[in-house]
Amino acid sequence: MLFKNAPQRVYVNEVATRDGFQNEDAFVPTVDKIHIIDRLSLAGLAKIEVTSFVSSKAIPNLRDAADVMAGITRRQGVVYSALVPNRQGALRALEAKVDEVNLVMSIGEKHNLANLRMTCAQSFVAFRDIMGVVKGSGVRTMGSVATAFGCPFEGEQPLSRLLWAVEQYLELGIQSVDLCDTVGTGHPRMIYTYCRAVKEAFPDLPVTVHFHDTRGMGLANVVAALEAGINSFDTSLGGIGGCPYAPDATGNISTEDTVHMLEACGVATGVDLDALIALGRELPALLGHDVPSRLGKVGKRTDLKPFPASLEQRGRIEAAPSTEAYRVPSV
Amino acid sequence: MLFKNAPQRVYVNEVATRDGFQNEDAFVPTVDKIHIIDRLSLAGLAKIEVTSFVSSKAIPNLRDAADVMAGITRRQGVVYSALVPNRQGALRALEAKVDEVNLVMSIGEKHNLANLRMTCAQSFVAFRDIMGVVKGSGVRTMGSVATAFGCPFEGEQPLSRLLWAVEQYLELGIQSVDLCDTVGTGHPRMIYTYCRAVKEAFPDLPVTVHFHDTRGMGLANVVAALEAGINSFDTSLGGIGGCPYAPDATGNISTEDTVHMLEACGVATGVDLDALIALGRELPALLGHDVPSRLGKVGKRTDLKPFPASLEQRGRIEAAPSTEAYRVPSV
Repeated sequence: MLFKNAPQRVYVNEVATRDGFQNEDAFVPTVDKIHIIDRLSLAGLAKIEVTSFVSSKAIPNLRDAADVMAGITRRQGVVYSALVPNRQGALRALEAKVDEVNLVMSIGEKHNLANLRMTCAQSFVAFRDIMGVVKGSGVRTMGSVATAFGCPFEGEQPLSRLLWAVEQYLELGIQSVDLCDTVGTGHPRMIYTYCRAVKEAFPDLPVTVHFHDTRGMGLANVVAALEAGINSFDTSLGGIGGCPYAPDATGNISTEDTVHMLEACGVATGVDLDALIALGRELPALLGHDVPSRLGKVGKRTDLKPFPASLEQRGRIEAAPSTEAYRVPSV
Repeated sequence: MLFKNAPQRVYVNEVATRDGFQNEDAFVPTVDKIHIIDRLSLAGLAKIEVTSFVSSKAIPNLRDAADVMAGITRRQGVVYSALVPNRQGALRALEAKVDEVNLVMSIGEKHNLANLRMTCAQSFVAFRDIMGVVKGSGVRTMGSVATAFGCPFEGEQPLSRLLWAVEQYLELGIQSVDLCDTVGTGHPRMIYTYCRAVKEAFPDLPVTVHFHDTRGMGLANVVAALEAGINSFDTSLGGIGGCPYAPDATGNISTEDTVHMLEACGVATGVDLDALIALGRELPALLGHDVPSRLGKVGKRTDLKPFPASLEQRGRIEAAPSTEAYRVPSV
């Protein structure tokens, strides 16, 4: 029975300002980043992945990480996180007073090598350094498992490898994990199976999922994850984002479209959908290109169109037939 | 438990040549229509909605309905259907030897008036005429319920009204129904609830669903319908299609993307996905514009990318760690 066991309240985490902006051809001005983040804060997102403390040589688009963190207005209850790739990044993130650091590795060896220039084992060694810096600071830690549902170079990854990676993170003392469908290869059955397995193996571990809509399965995968008990979703305003080493993987699932579906299904997000749609509609002008989100273009399912006046004259519509005889089953 | 009770074999019905081509700005040449239909037949679709026997004034793009029907090569086992709006259309469809006629009305009164220039009650009266023509011919009949999951002018339609419309069709002797999310307002919870209710109220009635991806929920709704026991899906090659009276409703769910997801989830479709992707890739040149399907652009989830040679030299990737200790639960 669909939705019967799904969470009724979920947390929506915004990644556009990191996963999205990092992939843009042009640098998004610092003031615009701050403006977007401040409005996202007001819209009720649970968490905002503000930026990434990487070297400005590696990702020039996020070279203003410290300035953005310093410029935003923090809202009580919102978690402001940042991606950190190494000890140096962790030190900068702590100095910038992030609430959470996000560590990332891919379980696909080749993707990890392409993306991070490290083997998986080397990534976990590097994480030890980061965890050493963060320990005792009170800053939260999340471990992202990229290519959890498939690697562009190696294909589907075994569930056992995902469970292994989660355990590696736990041994390092990580507080939560993010299972990322980096190149949009996960399908609903796989998402359900893998998420359930992680929840069963690590019942107390907070689990987030991070989907891309590369092959149109993004929101179907959200439904599958919900059924598996997942209550935390990474999404991107406008559906922007991607992965530089997986060129066709553009498009995280859109925050607007995801919140719209969840709320329609009776799953509370705490997000102000109208504010989000309005903000998403500013992106094309800011970025200089169209964005994938549907809601920004077509509006909500409850937005009605005006009935053509020429047809109003055409003839009286009879009252709807009585349909009381049709008992509506409670499903 | 997702997918546990879902059908393991489903039927995929192609609507691009009717729902798609009717909405194109330019007339698709008859020879091209025939070429596409013949290749769809070979690709293993269960049914092809070939055309519509409407007046050529109403829909000039399908003015070649009889020629297309006469020109295609029929493949054993494939159902060749056509939409018919009235008695005249039914006579032409029978003469063209269609296997099935598809009747259409919207349960949204205003949408029915806008689309068909009739009230709902008038539609069912007109259908009596059509059923009189078809009776005894051996030609199958399907009744489509448009705006079943929402009307662009009136919004959400009550389930009781959908059940009423299905019963009206049954009283006319219709053999199957098609529940159509004409403007993409259905969401997974609604799809599940409405489809289950129809299946429960009319257990022996073959039910097809017809989704549009207007708000990104298309494939999520397929998952929801599957869970409700639906085993027949209307889809459109390239994701083309729409509704002239619902201008933003462009895009049926794509045949390629739907088959790709279903097969990945272990649901058999009988469709040759590679043949379908190749055919869908011909559409932009034929129609003179991009099409919404994702698969045509990014390929299947199992298509691997070449690993950059520069990285092969970078260092030996260690053998994957032993993950035998991680028991994979059977979900």
